[in-house]
Amino acid sequence: MLTFDPQYIQESIDWLSSISEKDGKGTTRLLYSETWSQAQNELKERLEGLGMTCHFDAIGNLFGTIEGTDGTGETVATGSHIDTVVDGGRLDGQLGIISSYLSVEKLLATHGKPKKNLQVISLAEEEGSRFPYAFWGSKNLFGLAKKEDVEDIADPNGVRFVDAMRNAGFDFQESYTPREDIIAFIELHIEQGNYLENEGITIGVVDGIVGQKRYTITLTGESNHAGTTRMRYRKDTVEATARIVSRAIDMAKEAGDPLVLTFGSVVPEPNVVNVVPGKTTFSMDCRHSDREALDAFTERVIAYMREVTGEMDIGLEIDNWMDEDPTAMDSRIVETIEATCKDNGISYEVMTSGAGHDSQIFAKYVPTGMIFVPSIRGISHNPDEDTRIEDITIGVQTMAESLYRLAY
Amino acid sequence: MLTFDPQYIQESIDWLSSISEKDGKGTTRLLYSETWSQAQNELKERLEGLGMTCHFDAIGNLFGTIEGTDGTGETVATGSHIDTVVDGGRLDGQLGIISSYLSVEKLLATHGKPKKNLQVISLAEEEGSRFPYAFWGSKNLFGLAKKEDVEDIADPNGVRFVDAMRNAGFDFQESYTPREDIIAFIELHIEQGNYLENEGITIGVVDGIVGQKRYTITLTGESNHAGTTRMRYRKDTVEATARIVSRAIDMAKEAGDPLVLTFGSVVPEPNVVNVVPGKTTFSMDCRHSDREALDAFTERVIAYMREVTGEMDIGLEIDNWMDEDPTAMDSRIVETIEATCKDNGISYEVMTSGAGHDSQIFAKYVPTGMIFVPSIRGISHNPDEDTRIEDITIGVQTMAESLYRLAY
Repeated sequence: MLTFDPQYIQESIDWLSSISEKDGKGTTRLLYSETWSQAQNELKERLEGLGMTCHFDAIGNLFGTIEGTDGTGETVATGSHIDTVVDGGRLDGQLGIISSYLSVEKLLATHGKPKKNLQVISLAEEEGSRFPYAFWGSKNLFGLAKKEDVEDIADPNGVRFVDAMRNAGFDFQESYTPREDIIAFIELHIEQGNYLENEGITIGVVDGIVGQKRYTITLTGESNHAGTTRMRYRKDTVEATARIVSRAIDMAKEAGDPLVLTFGSVVPEPNVVNVVPGKTTFSMDCRHSDREALDAFTERVIAYMREVTGEMDIGLEIDNWMDEDPTAMDSRIVETIEATCKDNGISYEVMTSGAGHDSQIFAKYVPTGMIFVPSIRGISHNPDEDTRIEDITIGVQTMAESLYRLAY
Repeated sequence: MLTFDPQYIQESIDWLSSISEKDGKGTTRLLYSETWSQAQNELKERLEGLGMTCHFDAIGNLFGTIEGTDGTGETVATGSHIDTVVDGGRLDGQLGIISSYLSVEKLLATHGKPKKNLQVISLAEEEGSRFPYAFWGSKNLFGLAKKEDVEDIADPNGVRFVDAMRNAGFDFQESYTPREDIIAFIELHIEQGNYLENEGITIGVVDGIVGQKRYTITLTGESNHAGTTRMRYRKDTVEATARIVSRAIDMAKEAGDPLVLTFGSVVPEPNVVNVVPGKTTFSMDCRHSDREALDAFTERVIAYMREVTGEMDIGLEIDNWMDEDPTAMDSRIVETIEATCKDNGISYEVMTSGAGHDSQIFAKYVPTGMIFVPSIRGISHNPDEDTRIEDITIGVQTMAESLYRLAY
C-alpha cells in the first residue's frame, strides 16, 4: 500500500486551512474573497510544482492535469470545493482537495506517469455561504448554472455576486463544452455525521446521496385564554404538533436507516405562556437514499398529520418546497473503492451520504464515487470540526490506491 | 324579580365603552390616560346623579356610596376595573361597573334606601396593560401595593408611572386604613372562556379562582446535521418536547376539569429546517382550584419530564417562576348568588374562574363573590369580545337581586 507521512498530511492541511479571513482554529474562506483567490493561486503553484498543467475556467474553478500515456484523452478526476462556511472547520471541502493533491504527488513519485489523464479539481464554490446560491463550481462544470440565477443576488454586505466575481478576475462562462473526457470522479470528504465514529469504522464508501424533501407545515386552531378554556374546548396547535412529531419520529425509528426525519423549526403563535397557541408553523426535513421509500414514508407521515388535525378540528396546510431525487454513485467506482479497502485491510462500510456534495452534480454526468472519513462527534460547519489524523491518513491512502486502480 | 330594559343596559355599555383612545368596536383605555380620567369622571357624575356620595382615593380608585339606614356602617360593595388592555373589548372590567351602577339605580328606585351602605367601586387598574404592574387598584385598597414596585417602571413610550399618575391628579397613598366596613363584595365579569356558552348555562357562580403555576423548561441535547445524523444518535430536544407535551396533555385530560395545562411558548434552537435542535425552551402554565391537586399534577408531569429526558440523555432545567395559591370565594356570598339564581329560575352553575380577577385580592380580606356571564366563543382581550344582551340582562338581574339580599 502507498504510505503517507501523517505529519506531512497535517502540514498540508495547516497550510490550506490557514488561508482564512479569520484567525483561530477554523477557516472562513468565502467565494471570490481575497483569501479565496490566495488559496486558489497557492494551490495552483503547488500543483504546478508537481508538473501539472493548470488552468482556471471562466468562473474560477481550478484544474491541474497530468497527461496520461495511453493517448485516449480520458481523464480520472478528483477534488472538492475550496470555499467554506462562515466560521467553518479545517476539513470540509479542503480535505478533499488536499487528499487529491497528495495522492497525485505520491502516485507520480511512486509509479510515474499515469495511463489516463489525472486531474485535480478545486471547485470554486459549494456551500452557498457568501451568496444565496450553492454548487456554483460544479454546476458551471456541467453547464447547469444560469446567469439569471446570480445576476441579482448580493452578499450580506450588499456586494453583488457579479461584482465580486469580476473583481476576483472571473466572469460568466460564455460557452459550455461538455466534459466527455472524465471517466471517473472521486471526492474525499468528512462524513459530517457520527456514524463512522460510533460504529468504529474508518472509511465510508458512499454508494449514494440521499433524496430530500422539505416541508413547511402550518396548523391553524384557535387562540384561547390559557386559564378559562377547558381542555376539551381547545384547538391547541402545539398539542397537535407534539402528537405529530412524537409519532412521526417513532415511525422514522421503526423505518430504520438510512431514513432520517427532522422537525428543526417550530414557531407557535402568539408564543406566550398564557395563551393556547392558535397557530403553529413547523418544518419537516426527510431524507432517504431510495426515492420510493422516501415518498412512501412522507406520505404516511402526512396521512397521520391529516388524522390528528382531523380529529382535533385543526386546519392543515402542507407546503413541500424541496423535493430532491436521491443520487446513486457509480457502481464500478464504488466497487473500486471497496476493493481498495478490502485488499488493504481497511475497515469500511458502504453507506449513504445524508448531506449534499459536489459529487451529486458530477454523478448525473460522469461515473462518480465518494470516500468518507469519520468526523469526531459528527461536528461540522464549526471551528471544532475535526478528524483523527490516523483516519485522515487512511482516507488519503484509500484515495491514492483507488486513483491508481482507475488511472494506471 | 327586578326587571331591566336590555336597551337601557346596552346604551350604558355603549356610553362607557366608547370612552376609548381608539375608534372602532373595541375599547382601549389605559391607566391614567385622558380617556381613563374622562371615564372615571363621567362615571362619578352618573353615580352622584343617583344620590351617591363620591370620592377618589389617593391613587384614583372611585367610590360611590349610599349610606345605609341601620347605622352599623357596614358596607356591601360591588364593582370592577375601569382600565382595559390595548385593543380590548367592550365588556372586560367595565361590564362589572355598569352592572353595579345599574343595580344600585334599580334598587334605590324600587326599594329605597338600603339597610347597609351600598358602594360602587370603579377600580383604577387591573390589567397591567400600560405599565408592567397589575391589580394596582385593588392592591392599593388593601395596602398591598408598594411604592418601590412602580417607582422605576414606565410605559412603552417611556412615560414613567409616577409622572402619569401625578399628571392625572393622583399620587401614592401616604397612609392605609383597612376597609373593615366591607361585609360583602360582588364583582360581575365576563367568563372570558367558552364553558358557559358550550354548556348552555347563563350564569356562572364563581366559588374560587384557580391557583396557577408557571414554568420555563429548558432542554439541552445536541445540535446535529439533519442529514448525516442517524436517528439513534440524536439528542433531539424538539422530539423530547413533543413527547412531554403530548403525554402531559393526555394526563391533563384524564385529570379533568377544572385542571388546565398549556404549553403556549416553544422556542427551539437554532430553529432551522436542517439542524437537529440541540436546545428547546418551552413554557408550562397549569391551573387548578385545589392547591393539592395542582401540586400533585405538576409533580407528575415533572416526573414524566425527568423520565423522557433521562431516557434520551437530554439535560433538563425547570424554573417554576410563578406559584399562586387558589383563592376561595366566601361560601355565604356564593350561597346568596346561588339562591338568587335558584329562586328566580336562572340557569347557573357553580364554577371556578380560570383567570385572575380583582376579586382574588378582595377575597383575602373581605367576603367576596363573583358572577360570570357567558363570553361568545370565549373571545376576550379583543375587540370581538361579546356577550348576548339577553345574558347580560340576566347577569345584571342576578347582581341586583344578590345585592338586595345582602344590603336590604
